[in-house]
Amino acid sequence: MKDMPIGIFDSGLGGLTVMSQIMKLMPCEDIIYFGDTARVPYGSKSQESIIKYSMQIASFLLEKKVKIIVVACNTASALALPSLRKKLSVPVIGVIEPGAKYAVNATRNGRIGIIGTEGTINSSSYVKEIKRIDIKKKAFTQACPLFVPLVEEGWLSHPITYLIIEEYLKALTKKNIDTLILGCTHYPLIKKAIQKKVGKKTELVDSASATAGEVLKILKKDGLKSERQRKARYQFFVSDSPKKFQHVGQRFLGKLPMWVKKINLEEK
Amino acid sequence: MKDMPIGIFDSGLGGLTVMSQIMKLMPCEDIIYFGDTARVPYGSKSQESIIKYSMQIASFLLEKKVKIIVVACNTASALALPSLRKKLSVPVIGVIEPGAKYAVNATRNGRIGIIGTEGTINSSSYVKEIKRIDIKKKAFTQACPLFVPLVEEGWLSHPITYLIIEEYLKALTKKNIDTLILGCTHYPLIKKAIQKKVGKKTELVDSASATAGEVLKILKKDGLKSERQRKARYQFFVSDSPKKFQHVGQRFLGKLPMWVKKINLEEK
Repeated sequence: MKDMPIGIFDSGLGGLTVMSQIMKLMPCEDIIYFGDTARVPYGSKSQESIIKYSMQIASFLLEKKVKIIVVACNTASALALPSLRKKLSVPVIGVIEPGAKYAVNATRNGRIGIIGTEGTINSSSYVKEIKRIDIKKKAFTQACPLFVPLVEEGWLSHPITYLIIEEYLKALTKKNIDTLILGCTHYPLIKKAIQKKVGKKTELVDSASATAGEVLKILKKDGLKSERQRKARYQFFVSDSPKKFQHVGQRFLGKLPMWVKKINLEEK
Repeated sequence: MKDMPIGIFDSGLGGLTVMSQIMKLMPCEDIIYFGDTARVPYGSKSQESIIKYSMQIASFLLEKKVKIIVVACNTASALALPSLRKKLSVPVIGVIEPGAKYAVNATRNGRIGIIGTEGTINSSSYVKEIKRIDIKKKAFTQACPLFVPLVEEGWLSHPITYLIIEEYLKALTKKNIDTLILGCTHYPLIKKAIQKKVGKKTELVDSASATAGEVLKILKKDGLKSERQRKARYQFFVSDSPKKFQHVGQRFLGKLPMWVKKINLEEK
């Protein structure tokens, strides 16, 4: 049981930022990653579709005998986590609870900003989670639908990227926030640009590392942490062609050799 | 047979620009439109996936007894048209052949530019079709992956949209083209902004009207044109929630009352 792999999934590539943090924190844990590249992005789709897709992927990961499932996608965490937890027998961790918890501890003036996809922002999941932890904290949100296409286009520090960040964050920066949650796994790739625009005094919370910490905590608590001392094995599965995933994946994970296989979820 | 509806499909909303032209040209023809909003966008996905999705949608439209199928999506036209034509018994029209034909007739200096999604541009479909009609014409291409998210965000005349157009068209405008094919059904919505950037001397070819003309021609040729004199009926089907489709759809089609129903293609 302890030596079974960790399962991670995302709508596409973004979840690799979470995988990267888990690899750093738990270098001996095997990982199976699933990217739903045939149906990416999730951010603008309905809750019903997101729940269906998430359940299909979770079933696939369970067939692969994972000991825990990490929903490394903010939209799926926001819209499908309760359904997954209800139906699955392994622990399921999303990125929203760890990110919200970290932000609540980090803020000094109690004013937290949240940026994400339309799906994540409209679900109000971060706001609800922040209020659940501390009702007195103030939360302000902004959907930024162009950030994901910008990252996928590779315009990480392009002048236009700075202009789009400015446009989206205009209203938020007037709210005197001192903490900003990057509520989408793609956003850490434009973290430097965002930091420049909001200024050094605003702390950026990247859910990826908070989530990795939470995974470690749960594995320890449930006695599921691997005690092996060997190099971990990583496997990648996608629902569309592996080629683009391998290519853009290196932007997220560095030049790790990636063994990527295509799986047809719809016919499962 | 003559009074059966025209079937139109697209990855999402973009094909409504084609539908709108067909409605103008053939106001008595009933139309059934399918938007694959659960899997949009097609532009960055593999040919294998695009063929699978297109076949599923075509089967659905045939169940609805359409007399002709219009592939109102450049990516699906580029990647799935031969497969559809091989397997279907009704005429199948894509947007690429009519657009290429129009451009070849329109150019005065024989230099044609083509912009589109990654999938459309990488397929070289427009270039092949232009060369098939007239080998002496020169064709120059540029993928513009951020245009679709910009249109969906509604930034149709935003200053940032102008900057992104400038960035993408920089190389193309140096090629001395006098004709530019808008090789994606979303692009007509930023046609004014594109025209401003390329200048009045460059003619923009919007495949939508060229395609509508081609549909009329084929219906007449095959004796399939409706001779009824009544107001046409329009039905819309989507694979994700109808709500967003109805909302953004009006940006494409005007304030037409839209009857939209969700269909689960994967389980068909």
